[in-house]
Amino acid sequence: MNVFVVNCGSSSIKYQLFDMSNQSVLAKGVMERVGSENASLAHTIDGTKHIRHIKAPNHTEGMAVILKTLVDPEIGVLKSISEIHGVGHRVVHGGEQLTKSSRIDQNLLAIIRQNSQLAPLHNPPNLMGIEAAMTAMPDVPHVAVFDTAFLSTLPPRAFRYAVPEDWYSLQHVRRYGFHGTSHKYVTLKTAEILNKPVDKLNVITAHLGNGCSMTAVQGGRAIDHSMGMTPLEGLVMGTRCGDIDPAVLIYMMKQGASLEEIDNTLNKKSGLLGVSTSSNDMRDLLASADKGDPKAALAVEMFVYRVVKYVGSYFTVLPSVDALVLTGGIGENSLPVRHRICLGLERLGAKIDPARNESLPSGTPGPITTDDSALPVWVVPTNEELMIARDTIAELA
Amino acid sequence: MNVFVVNCGSSSIKYQLFDMSNQSVLAKGVMERVGSENASLAHTIDGTKHIRHIKAPNHTEGMAVILKTLVDPEIGVLKSISEIHGVGHRVVHGGEQLTKSSRIDQNLLAIIRQNSQLAPLHNPPNLMGIEAAMTAMPDVPHVAVFDTAFLSTLPPRAFRYAVPEDWYSLQHVRRYGFHGTSHKYVTLKTAEILNKPVDKLNVITAHLGNGCSMTAVQGGRAIDHSMGMTPLEGLVMGTRCGDIDPAVLIYMMKQGASLEEIDNTLNKKSGLLGVSTSSNDMRDLLASADKGDPKAALAVEMFVYRVVKYVGSYFTVLPSVDALVLTGGIGENSLPVRHRICLGLERLGAKIDPARNESLPSGTPGPITTDDSALPVWVVPTNEELMIARDTIAELA
Repeated sequence: MNVFVVNCGSSSIKYQLFDMSNQSVLAKGVMERVGSENASLAHTIDGTKHIRHIKAPNHTEGMAVILKTLVDPEIGVLKSISEIHGVGHRVVHGGEQLTKSSRIDQNLLAIIRQNSQLAPLHNPPNLMGIEAAMTAMPDVPHVAVFDTAFLSTLPPRAFRYAVPEDWYSLQHVRRYGFHGTSHKYVTLKTAEILNKPVDKLNVITAHLGNGCSMTAVQGGRAIDHSMGMTPLEGLVMGTRCGDIDPAVLIYMMKQGASLEEIDNTLNKKSGLLGVSTSSNDMRDLLASADKGDPKAALAVEMFVYRVVKYVGSYFTVLPSVDALVLTGGIGENSLPVRHRICLGLERLGAKIDPARNESLPSGTPGPITTDDSALPVWVVPTNEELMIARDTIAELA
Repeated sequence: MNVFVVNCGSSSIKYQLFDMSNQSVLAKGVMERVGSENASLAHTIDGTKHIRHIKAPNHTEGMAVILKTLVDPEIGVLKSISEIHGVGHRVVHGGEQLTKSSRIDQNLLAIIRQNSQLAPLHNPPNLMGIEAAMTAMPDVPHVAVFDTAFLSTLPPRAFRYAVPEDWYSLQHVRRYGFHGTSHKYVTLKTAEILNKPVDKLNVITAHLGNGCSMTAVQGGRAIDHSMGMTPLEGLVMGTRCGDIDPAVLIYMMKQGASLEEIDNTLNKKSGLLGVSTSSNDMRDLLASADKGDPKAALAVEMFVYRVVKYVGSYFTVLPSVDALVLTGGIGENSLPVRHRICLGLERLGAKIDPARNESLPSGTPGPITTDDSALPVWVVPTNEELMIARDTIAELA
């Protein structure tokens, strides 16, 4: 059974084709500058990347190029598109109605469209991708997998904000949470690794990449989460501010900043980039900090401190914690950040094992604390695409 | 030595006159509707309140009435105003420059005036009060005691936001913190009660009133705090939202709300009032929740949950915690809220002693956890006016 996984942005299409008999990736790729005359397609098979310059004036034509590439005699992996048995689509915002992966029909499309007002940058391109793929493959089942779904189990005390009730009931202002597919994947993977039924598993999962979020998971279900109504809230991220006094926006607007400037600045010029003034990339910042750059050092310190504080609050509201699970680009690859997070959690019983942290191969799950660490810290590489493929298969069963 | 303590709002003057030889209150009172023809003065001596209707077209004339009352043959307590040896003024915002209580001179007044842009609702009336009192008592020393001062020891990782560096360096956007005089008072009082040098004391102090804030105190110095650039950030309060996704403001403005509406709503119609839709008073909400009102119950639950999460994060970043200290109207008087906070902190070793919680007399400090509670929780009544009087004496020495 082959499942094609699609993740559409406003000017990009990412995809992976899985052979679900063994969960292997047959091909994957990314098309960039969709909507232009000089788009590019980077298509990877057997670890080799093939780059082609193409025309993709819209997502439908871009999708047609990708499908043609999958059956290309030279770099294709299928004889015919009919060998694709299901298509899984990443959709950012399911709102309150769509709380699990769902077969796509007209009714579902209408709800995703409605939720576009909650995710104006994400749901519309997701929809373009779905429509393009449904046009190209009308006879196979398409499944929508929502970033918000895994977080839909949050109780009201965690998802409501202390704003007027009608902001929630009429305007849908609440915490939704994001990165749910990643948090779900590493939760399931951790249950497997620890050999524990997932409904008995309590973990804190930290997805630390360019975007960063944390989830408190009790009995396999999310009970709290750091991102909010949008992905702006919570941890310090590459370019997003995370938690700030909401009155900062009011103050800056009274100083003359426009709403658009504020929106753009808090999403694209803040976080690690804003504090360091030099980079949103943790590797750059660690290198600069080592060379004595105090702004880079402060950015890293704030990043770690915020993670540690969130772990402390989730540790307190969970009845027990089987592990803190680090994932995402920084969680999987930044040894110094992992080391510092563990040191920051000594009060909760975390005992770093520096040798384990340093020798853990990239892409491999494993603990980075000692065996007697009261709070075990694990690195578990995420795989959102595989999670989407699995959810797609489950919907087709 | 008599110290007169003044706290001026835009239309009110609160005062207390202390005899510092025994720290007793000789008289206290509040003038309301200052700036109008029908102001009122409630003046209390020996536990008896005397109410007078007066004219106070401005703070200077209001102050003159108060001073006249202090030497009134019937309800006065002094023979002459010259028996006042120092005046302590509550000032909300000291900014980054004013980090401790300071003797007031023209230079200091200029800095407080500068900081008015950071506290436009508070510093200007504080200044009016200072000027009125200096006019009436030009020959005694006046001391400014800042709400922000005790929080000025926060390290950059705690006071900086992950916004562009020039928002901090040019626009002064950072966490300042408030309620500092209360957090300082209960910190010193707790050191005294626990018979520990304050520079060895690690506590988490929670001022829970209509406004709410928490401070992590290490070695007697604040290292983290929940309020931010303004008093809007942090815990759920009577009418303030506390922490929310900053993008909620952007979203609501895109839906058509004006900046003024948002500002007003988040400060005056949110918090307990916003969620419950019925009251900002914890007593009302507990009563309504008992009668089965689900919105009141949720408001209380969110209030407690947020406190518990903050305790968890501060517990994690402090090397040890001698006590969680509850103060303010709710902390000192709401037995059910104290009980629930302790239950929420079981994971950190708090063990409620229900009998202690219920039998602790109002206005008296005491523990509400068992003697073997790994995290002791204490109630310590605050006294900001006495702290201001003490700081005033210290400056005059």
